[in-house]
Amino acid sequence: MQNWKITLSYDGTLFHGWQVQPGLRTVQGELQAALGRVVGEAPLPQGSGRTDAGVHALGQVASFSLAAAIPAANLLRALNRTLPSSIRILAASVADPVFHARHSAVAKTYEYRIFRGEGCSPFLAPYIHVSDWHLEVARMRRAAADVVGEHDFLSLAASDPDLASRSDVIPSSRDSSSAIRTIYASDWVEPADGRLIYRVRGNGFLHHMVRNLVGTMIEIGRGQFAEDSMPRILQAKSRAAAGPTVPARGLFLCSVEYPQADY
Amino acid sequence: MQNWKITLSYDGTLFHGWQVQPGLRTVQGELQAALGRVVGEAPLPQGSGRTDAGVHALGQVASFSLAAAIPAANLLRALNRTLPSSIRILAASVADPVFHARHSAVAKTYEYRIFRGEGCSPFLAPYIHVSDWHLEVARMRRAAADVVGEHDFLSLAASDPDLASRSDVIPSSRDSSSAIRTIYASDWVEPADGRLIYRVRGNGFLHHMVRNLVGTMIEIGRGQFAEDSMPRILQAKSRAAAGPTVPARGLFLCSVEYPQADY
Repeated sequence: MQNWKITLSYDGTLFHGWQVQPGLRTVQGELQAALGRVVGEAPLPQGSGRTDAGVHALGQVASFSLAAAIPAANLLRALNRTLPSSIRILAASVADPVFHARHSAVAKTYEYRIFRGEGCSPFLAPYIHVSDWHLEVARMRRAAADVVGEHDFLSLAASDPDLASRSDVIPSSRDSSSAIRTIYASDWVEPADGRLIYRVRGNGFLHHMVRNLVGTMIEIGRGQFAEDSMPRILQAKSRAAAGPTVPARGLFLCSVEYPQADY
Repeated sequence: MQNWKITLSYDGTLFHGWQVQPGLRTVQGELQAALGRVVGEAPLPQGSGRTDAGVHALGQVASFSLAAAIPAANLLRALNRTLPSSIRILAASVADPVFHARHSAVAKTYEYRIFRGEGCSPFLAPYIHVSDWHLEVARMRRAAADVVGEHDFLSLAASDPDLASRSDVIPSSRDSSSAIRTIYASDWVEPADGRLIYRVRGNGFLHHMVRNLVGTMIEIGRGQFAEDSMPRILQAKSRAAAGPTVPARGLFLCSVEYPQADY
């Protein structure tokens, strides 16, 4: 058996998220079926984390084992020929036997894209959240900076009963039911095209955490919440203290990091 | 009654083309329904021409009459608020009473986008045709230049029985069953991102004409047809002489021109 690592991009618009579900089109399900067609083995690929329905990926990572020996370039090409064009394998390599896309991950980067105002291009619309609010970006940048560091993010997590099972990149040294995560970088950028983009890099993210962070920072940007409210929201450890969940279509999983280059 | 001119963009992926059809989602049908919701009148907007299922528009033009007097900015904003995000109105204005989006048109520009090779981004895939062939662009540029001028394009038209009714921008001075059209500009461009783009501007286009032109030039570019074969293909006046029809997803209606600015 060889352990494989693949990096892939997908347009989340057409999928019911990453995780395989009976009768629904999912990225994991499409990958498993493609492996079956190409290799004749159909292991369930393990992703670095689940992405929800409608969330996109620029650099999701998955791992799986195959008995068949197949050159990496051939596997990559064959998978791309049989997969729908909404999923593209960007890289494929044989990994260390202990590599696991979720358990081995040490950091992830997400991006959330906002279009301000009217007249959003139909070709951009599936990949961006349109906001009509007047947003003061300086206030949002301050709130973004306030989440950098180690915090309990319970206020920003989906109020699911199964919190632990829906969170991703949980460092194995830590209680999986904890909502404590470390954010390494968190900022808003404004490209010349007028979009407003939130980029966040951390050691793990709870279910809906990025979308709830963005929803909360929009409330801060439009003046509904005070400029300095993020620390209090974190301290409240209550979903009710934070802002709404913004739509999935603006969210991109950009990249997943692992401790060793040869992983 | 006021006569209106609107310019609109749409992602053709989700529509069964421009023309209203019972039980199917079409751009014309969505527009008519949106007018009904906004103005309480639901005229059938007349497009500059039909676009087929899957064909996109950056600057389609349509005209219709309304009894209600409504400021142009309000109509534009209200339509965009009620239309699906896959259709955006870019401009709306009251036009001369004789203006008609199809009959008044004097030129149209189309673009056909090709991605060469493997690894096309999932976010680009719905809007581009992926070609695995090695294409010699110099041969394709020569063929593109060969169609400039007035020609009978019967070889490049869909072999529909209802050719006349499926062609667009037919100058009123000309027999509508004629396949003679004038091409003002026709060339391939290669942006730095590696795409290959065909741009063509003419006084009118037969059904499938741009997609058949591109399919024929791909045959020329990959060496299946001789470099100088375009004149002979035109002279044959037979669909069988030309190349295949390339997929709709790569085709964009870019703009429609009218003789007077105040139209």
